[in-house]
Amino acid sequence: VSDRAPIEFHFDFISPFGYFASLRIDALAAKYGRSVDWRSMLIGVSVLKVMGVKSLLATPLKGDYLRRDFARYARCHGLALARSIDAPPASPLPAGRAFWWLRRHHPDRAKPFAQTAYRAYWAEGRDIGSVEAVVAIAREADAAADDLRSAFGSDEPAALLRAGVEDALAKGVFGSPFFLVDGEPFFGVEKLESMEEWLARGGW
Amino acid sequence: VSDRAPIEFHFDFISPFGYFASLRIDALAAKYGRSVDWRSMLIGVSVLKVMGVKSLLATPLKGDYLRRDFARYARCHGLALARSIDAPPASPLPAGRAFWWLRRHHPDRAKPFAQTAYRAYWAEGRDIGSVEAVVAIAREADAAADDLRSAFGSDEPAALLRAGVEDALAKGVFGSPFFLVDGEPFFGVEKLESMEEWLARGGW
Repeated sequence: VSDRAPIEFHFDFISPFGYFASLRIDALAAKYGRSVDWRSMLIGVSVLKVMGVKSLLATPLKGDYLRRDFARYARCHGLALARSIDAPPASPLPAGRAFWWLRRHHPDRAKPFAQTAYRAYWAEGRDIGSVEAVVAIAREADAAADDLRSAFGSDEPAALLRAGVEDALAKGVFGSPFFLVDGEPFFGVEKLESMEEWLARGGW
Repeated sequence: VSDRAPIEFHFDFISPFGYFASLRIDALAAKYGRSVDWRSMLIGVSVLKVMGVKSLLATPLKGDYLRRDFARYARCHGLALARSIDAPPASPLPAGRAFWWLRRHHPDRAKPFAQTAYRAYWAEGRDIGSVEAVVAIAREADAAADDLRSAFGSDEPAALLRAGVEDALAKGVFGSPFFLVDGEPFFGVEKLESMEEWLARGGW
């Protein structure tokens, strides 16, 4: 990995296509000497309000397409999923708060935490919507679980998540997954091939 | 081209990404022994009302991303465009009505008409929003221009377009470009690679 700026990877823990992208982004970036800066985001909670739109799954026509595309992507990539895209979503707040707190205080454990949370939620069908659940995930990810539990007694995790979301909004992030390569935005798992071409050619 | 069912290509004449896809879809389909069934659609006029959403360009965050992606796609593919994505759009109704009337009465001229109209609008920056304009385009495309002009004196072109839009909505078409391969939906120019893999593998 070179000294070039990392690729920013913005994701929402409850976004299925964010999960799909999380399984590919590090290997893709490494091919081009890049590291990845994982940054959790709140799409349903924050961005859709800014955009003035409803959830994509609740949007006529588009929702049905996404259900089909979700299942099709999983089949194509051989992913076993334990959660229906239509299952009531967990609150993404506890995991987002834990992520940003780890990113500040134990930066090398934030990504393992996110990967473990994503797997727990989508591949294992577990809840990630409570402090207890995310502390358990932190323990599995060797991510300072006891300190994290204590931190949830303060306002800091929530404040750090808010700051992360504000930063992402200021950069124009509106979906999950969303990538920034030296400021160049790529939205959606379908853009990974295009982004890879951008990396290979150094832009165009 | 084999006797397998054609790929349905749904497009809106005023959709830039529909135009981009129109330049690639026939060659892509031919690689897999498929013809293409071009079908014009009305996204802004009809589909967005069904979805209950506003125009993508008018959507905060998403609009700015699409402006950038439009310019980026054109650069990547070496396309010279004479129209800004933010220029006031033409009415897509005259071209849509002409297209469906040709498709019924001169089926081999409908696609040449659509290609000529797309080029006129996006690559040459011409108006396509009047009967006179689409009759001129039909003349350039050797598409029964005089008969078409006469047909606009009847309700038939409008009725045929309405039927085409209803058919597309019933199939779940909600954007441009939108493809159906043996009923399998693919939305967006970014899905062409995935659709090609689907064709190559015969699905998954």
